[in-house]
This record gives sequence, C-alpha cells and structure tokens, in this order.
Amino acid sequence: MPQKKEIQDKLKKANAETGDKIKVESKNVKREGFLMPHHQFSDEDIITIKLDNGYNIGLKVDKDTKITLLDKHKKKVNKPKEIPFDKNKKNVSLIGTGGTIACYVDYRTGAVHPASSAKELAFSVPEVFDVCNVKAQVAYQILSENIDIKHWQILSKKIADELNNGAVGVIVPHGTDTMGYTGAALSFMIKDLSGPVVLVGSQRSSDRPSSDAALNLIAAANIASKSDIGEIVVTMHSDISDTKIMIHRGTKVRKFHTSRRDAFKTVNDLPLGFVENNKIELNSKYRKKTKGKVRVDSKMEPDVSMIYYYPGMKAEDIPEKKGVVIIGTGLGHVSEKLIPRIKKLVDKGTIIVMTSQCFFGRVDMSVYSTGRDLIKAGIIPCLDMLPETAYVKLMWALGHSSNRDEVKKIMNTNIAGEISDRTKSKAFL
Amino acid sequence: MPQKKEIQDKLKKANAETGDKIKVESKNVKREGFLMPHHQFSDEDIITIKLDNGYNIGLKVDKDTKITLLDKHKKKVNKPKEIPFDKNKKNVSLIGTGGTIACYVDYRTGAVHPASSAKELAFSVPEVFDVCNVKAQVAYQILSENIDIKHWQILSKKIADELNNGAVGVIVPHGTDTMGYTGAALSFMIKDLSGPVVLVGSQRSSDRPSSDAALNLIAAANIASKSDIGEIVVTMHSDISDTKIMIHRGTKVRKFHTSRRDAFKTVNDLPLGFVENNKIELNSKYRKKTKGKVRVDSKMEPDVSMIYYYPGMKAEDIPEKKGVVIIGTGLGHVSEKLIPRIKKLVDKGTIIVMTSQCFFGRVDMSVYSTGRDLIKAGIIPCLDMLPETAYVKLMWALGHSSNRDEVKKIMNTNIAGEISDRTKSKAFL
Repeated sequence: MPQKKEIQDKLKKANAETGDKIKVESKNVKREGFLMPHHQFSDEDIITIKLDNGYNIGLKVDKDTKITLLDKHKKKVNKPKEIPFDKNKKNVSLIGTGGTIACYVDYRTGAVHPASSAKELAFSVPEVFDVCNVKAQVAYQILSENIDIKHWQILSKKIADELNNGAVGVIVPHGTDTMGYTGAALSFMIKDLSGPVVLVGSQRSSDRPSSDAALNLIAAANIASKSDIGEIVVTMHSDISDTKIMIHRGTKVRKFHTSRRDAFKTVNDLPLGFVENNKIELNSKYRKKTKGKVRVDSKMEPDVSMIYYYPGMKAEDIPEKKGVVIIGTGLGHVSEKLIPRIKKLVDKGTIIVMTSQCFFGRVDMSVYSTGRDLIKAGIIPCLDMLPETAYVKLMWALGHSSNRDEVKKIMNTNIAGEISDRTKSKAFL
Repeated sequence: MPQKKEIQDKLKKANAETGDKIKVESKNVKREGFLMPHHQFSDEDIITIKLDNGYNIGLKVDKDTKITLLDKHKKKVNKPKEIPFDKNKKNVSLIGTGGTIACYVDYRTGAVHPASSAKELAFSVPEVFDVCNVKAQVAYQILSENIDIKHWQILSKKIADELNNGAVGVIVPHGTDTMGYTGAALSFMIKDLSGPVVLVGSQRSSDRPSSDAALNLIAAANIASKSDIGEIVVTMHSDISDTKIMIHRGTKVRKFHTSRRDAFKTVNDLPLGFVENNKIELNSKYRKKTKGKVRVDSKMEPDVSMIYYYPGMKAEDIPEKKGVVIIGTGLGHVSEKLIPRIKKLVDKGTIIVMTSQCFFGRVDMSVYSTGRDLIKAGIIPCLDMLPETAYVKLMWALGHSSNRDEVKKIMNTNIAGEISDRTKSKAFL
C-alpha cells in the first residue's frame, strides 16, 4: 500500500530523497542507511533503508520517529558511469536470465524493472564489486516458469564460454521457481568445470524490505571468485537470520516454500557448505574444479513427461512418450490397475522411471508386491533422485541414446551427485 | 538376510523359541523381551525382541552375548481366545483397511501376513487392549496405493455407523502411501463427528526391529478413547526418539520420507498436538466433537486429474476433464505458453485450480504477471492448501455442483481446516 502522508512529509522536511543516506531514530531503534523507494507490498507506516551490508530493512515510523539526512545521493547506483575494475580482484562472469533477483531498482522513480542491459544487471547489486570484478551479460530475460530446454542449452554454452575465456567462476541470477530444474540441467550438460557455477535467486526483489537479493548475490560472488568448487551450485538463505547462505548441489535441491527466503533445501544429502560473513565453509564431498577445457554436452529429448500419481489415476493419464517420470507414492508405487498400461507402454518403447512424492528417502521397489510387479513391467527405479532431477536427467539420457539398456545404465550411474548412497539418503528435514 | 547359524544355535541352547520371554546380555546392553521371528530385511547378526512397551528392537548378537530363557510362550498372541472386554474402559472401533500396520505376525512360523479377520486385526497390536475396549472389523484389505474413491466412500459410511452406534472414537489402520489423501477425503466426507477418527500407519511392520506399529497404535487408541477431538487426524512418530507421537490434521498432512518413521509432517500449520507416555497434549485450535448424529456426504466426481508442472510441459499434457489440479511452481505459475490451453479448457467448462509444488507457503497469483494472466484465464488459486487435499476437495466439490461459481466458492471456503490464515502458512520445516 502507499506510504502514509505523514511519513512522506517527515522525509520532505528532512530533505531526504530516495538514494540519500539517512538516520532513523525511534524509541528502541536507531539505524542508518540509504533510503529506498517505497514498495507497493510494504505497509503504509514503513520506510525501507539499505544498510551498509547491502541488506534492506523496513523500519516502522510513528509520530515520534526522527529522520535525519546524513548524505545527499551518495549512492547514485542508477547512473553508473562504468563497472569498476580492480586488478587485485578475481574476474567473475555474471549471466542474467531474468527473475526477481535481476530486477533493477530505479532510485529516482522507485520503479522496479528487470535488468535489460549488462550494466543494469551488474549494478542490480553493486555490493558484488567489493568481492570480485564482474563481467556481465544478459542471456535472456524471462520469468523462470517460462524456462525450457533451449534456455538451458543457451546458458550452458555461455557458461562454458566464460570459463574457457578467463572467468574464474560464473554467477547466474535466476528466478527461483525453476532454479532447481536449471541446477540439474546444467549439472548434466556441462562437463569438466574449471570453476564454480553459482545459481542464485531471491524471494523478494531488492526494493523490498527484507530483500534477500544482496546477501545471496554477495555469497554467490564469494563462492564464484574464491572457492575451488567444480560443480553447479545453488545459493540461497539458510534460515531467516540473514547471515548464513547455504550452498546446495544443483542436482539435490528444490524449493519447498512459496515465499520464505530459506525456501531451498538440499534433499537426501547434506548441503555442500555455507557462506557466513564473507567466509566460505565447505565439507569435503564436493567435486573440485579441473584445469582443462570446459565441455558442453547439452542434447536433450523433449518428448518426456512427468506424472504425479494420485488415487483414481486412470490408464490414459499416463501418456505415450519417449520417456515418462512417475512421481509415485512411498517407496515407488502406483495403483496396480495401472500396471498393464505401464507394461504396454514399456513394450512399445517408452522408458518409464520411478521417483517418490515423498521427495526425501529412497525409492525401493523390492519391498512390496506392487513395486516388484512394476519392476517386472519394466519400470526403472531412480534410487534417491529428486523427481525434478530425474526428469531432466531422463531428457538428457534420451538425448544420448534411445536404447533401453543404455538409458537404464545412464539413469543408474551417478553423473553429477544426483544419486547418494544409502547413508546420505537418511538426511531429513 | 537369514539369521546366522551361530545365533540360531545360541537360541536353541537356551531353549528359546519365538514368542518366549528372554533376556539378552551383551557387553554394553541388557534387555528383556519377547523373542520375535527373524525378518528377511534384518541383518544376519540380529535378534529382535518386543519390549514391554510394545516396541520391537533389534539387538546385535556376538559370540559373547548371553541369552537366557525367562518365560515360556507367555505371549501367545497368535492364538487369541477372545478379545478382552473391560467395562471400565471406553469402546473404540478399529476398522482395518490393509497396509503395513495391519500386518499380523504369526509367532509360530514367523510369517507376516495381512490381518484378514477382525480378530487378527485386533490382535495385531494387543497392547491397545490396555488402553480401551476394541471392536474390530476389516473394511477391505489393500495396499494403500490401490485406494480409490469407492474405498473412501465405504470407509466413511463404516466410520459414521460405528460412531452412531456407541463407539467413542474410531481407529483406522491405513497404509502410509496414501494416508494423507484418505485423511483429506474423510475430512470432507464425514460431518458432525461425535468422536475422534484416527488414521494410523506404520513404516515398518511389527515383526521388524524398530517397528513403529505398536507405539503409533497405542497413541491412536489414547486419542480415540480419551480425547474430545471431532476431526479426522493422522498419528505417526514425531521424530525418531520413539516416545512422541504427533497428531496431524487430516487435511494438512503429507508423507515426506519413503522410509523414516517420522515421515509425516503437518504443512502450513502446527500439528494439533502430540501423545507422549500415554498423555495427550492438544493445542486449542482443533474442532471439538459434537453430540448429534454423524452424517456422511461422500459424493465425488472421479473425472479429475492432478498435473505436476515441469519446464517443457506441452498444451496437450493438460487433459480435458471436469476438474484439473495444477501443481505449479512457486506462488502458482506455469509457463505462459500453457495459458491459451488453460483458457480454452476453462471456457469449455473444466474447473482448473492452482496449488504449489513448494508444498509449504501460500499460492499468491497477484504478485507476478504470469499469476495475474492465469487468474484472467479462469484458474482458481487454492491458497495454502496441499495439492493432494485440493485434489480430493475438487472431486468432492464437483460431486456437489458443476456450477463454476459454486465450485469456486466451495474451494475458497474452509471446510475442514484445509485453509489456514496467513500467519499459519508461515509455519515451515
């Protein structure tokens, strides 16, 4: 909702405009920061300031709140002259794809719009310049729910090009809706990584109080420029404390909350590590970057569906495609009524694989008769793979072979950390 | 795998047979309990005993382990004479449906088979007799992945009959695969509950070490006989400590792990309460039982599908049915390419509703353009409802009306606790 007139008057009286450094003093709180534009989703009695750590907070303003102007337009980030370059810092490439995180706040008008140029993208969170040098480009500008195979193929090529041309790491700001899918897709498509590739999103755009954009991007910059990871990772808030950013493996992560900043969780494994106060802590299990040339192998078969089983599903609800991922119940089940349909499709050449709508834990189709019958019908169990990862992997596998035994072998081989051993799949919420 | 010969010899030497009370003494452990049959999934060096609290544990046996016979066949639960009756105890009905929990261990042969008679069902966990009187019946005997609308209709009628004929509560042992769906279905189908209806499952059958069957059933018996809840609830382990059993609302719970005993979690709310040491703790928000007659209103439209969105989904992947539940990304999105198909189906009369594959949090289709366009196309957002609950509710709503406005009104009305307010939907893992 719009900001209260009384607050607007207070700001006017202090001669404080958007972008100015101000001090806000209330009974219990005293904070300094850059005045941010008022957001339509913010309450009417709030002003938003950006703290020195790059984080936006909303402060309640009442009649006793004092606002003081400290510095006029010091942070004119909307009129950047040039992206800074520091020869003592590492060179990281930033590849924009769209999404909430790549939204650019116009400090004059308060309007939020997607970063459409490389410069706008780079300046969407200028705090990153403190960590590394940034070479920015916009690959495409879409809401992430619109992402498709061709976007992954474009992106994988661009990432490889950047790494093969001197970047020590790559940051990919990405919409959170399908960031898990993209994490998995890039993990299968890009081989022999010579540096970290960090997907990073935000749940709240950078003009909103409690935006997570800056902190997530700063963590991404740290990982991309300073770590020796040779994997596709996803970095988002670990919890709501706004200090700790989790590093998730691209094949083992999904979004579990529609709006919380800590929505992303690693499934069936421990996260690869975390970033706190610009320090990276990693466990020992990640794949290290290599020295050779980064390769791209991005062929995918698009004729694949993913089916979420529910009681009452009918035979015709399982389509005839080159590949089908079933998200079954429990250890990997569907109604026994569907088994003849599955057998028929398998016999006609459809590769059907099984995952679980539990998400956590392992598919095990040897325990109950339904599982055993499904195996007999020709279903391939996907161990502890996420359904989303299994879907992406099946498209990739079918892009490389249409031979059943070969596809089965690919699905059961751990290519990018998507399959964990039994101990790890005990990891739970 | 089969039990080691050395262990079998040790047991033979001690004259200990399945069902006998024994003492097992190793270097660090000394336990007493009833010897259970060896399970094919147990390790070869394990013996399983049932403790006095009804819980099965597996004990490692090495060459120094001492086994002593304490009592011969005291617990001959496989040859029950009569189900005990104590006039000082409350009368609870037990309605069997199949599933791991209703498996009956033959103490002579060690075989596990589904309880097929009322008596076998009642004696599948005889510890329940300590809590209440039990009147048992077997409604059907299926693996829960095979459950369908007609099973919910049969069950709802039987539950109402029992409550209307003197039972203070009803226990429904149920397979865990679809227990969440059944919880939701019964919640919409049964009205004016005069007592608690407790769905209870187990992740490991009662012949296995660390079976959760007994503890879950004892908790269910406590809730059914002693609480004033007038809702359908699900009770399963709260964690892996084997002391605390969580009480989940039937419309707000789903299975999040393929094998862990604490697989069930309440989503977008706090659980209704828990049972610990035979004591029930409830928070204040549950619906209390009423005094009148329990009614059944179980009409459902079966022509409904549930679709899990994934990048690359094609228009034809959304079927033409009376109702479709979409499990979209994030706040409730699908690719903009699908919007014309959705609009066309809506115009032809399909009711399409939106939920989120995040599971936690709230669908909000006003934040991004995709959401707003989907609303314009005629999609009905399902607030913070679970996809599984929305699926069951849409079948129920369409069973009562085919008028779009009426169905929309039903979907947006909180009938059985399936919709929470915004505060509650902040509850997360």
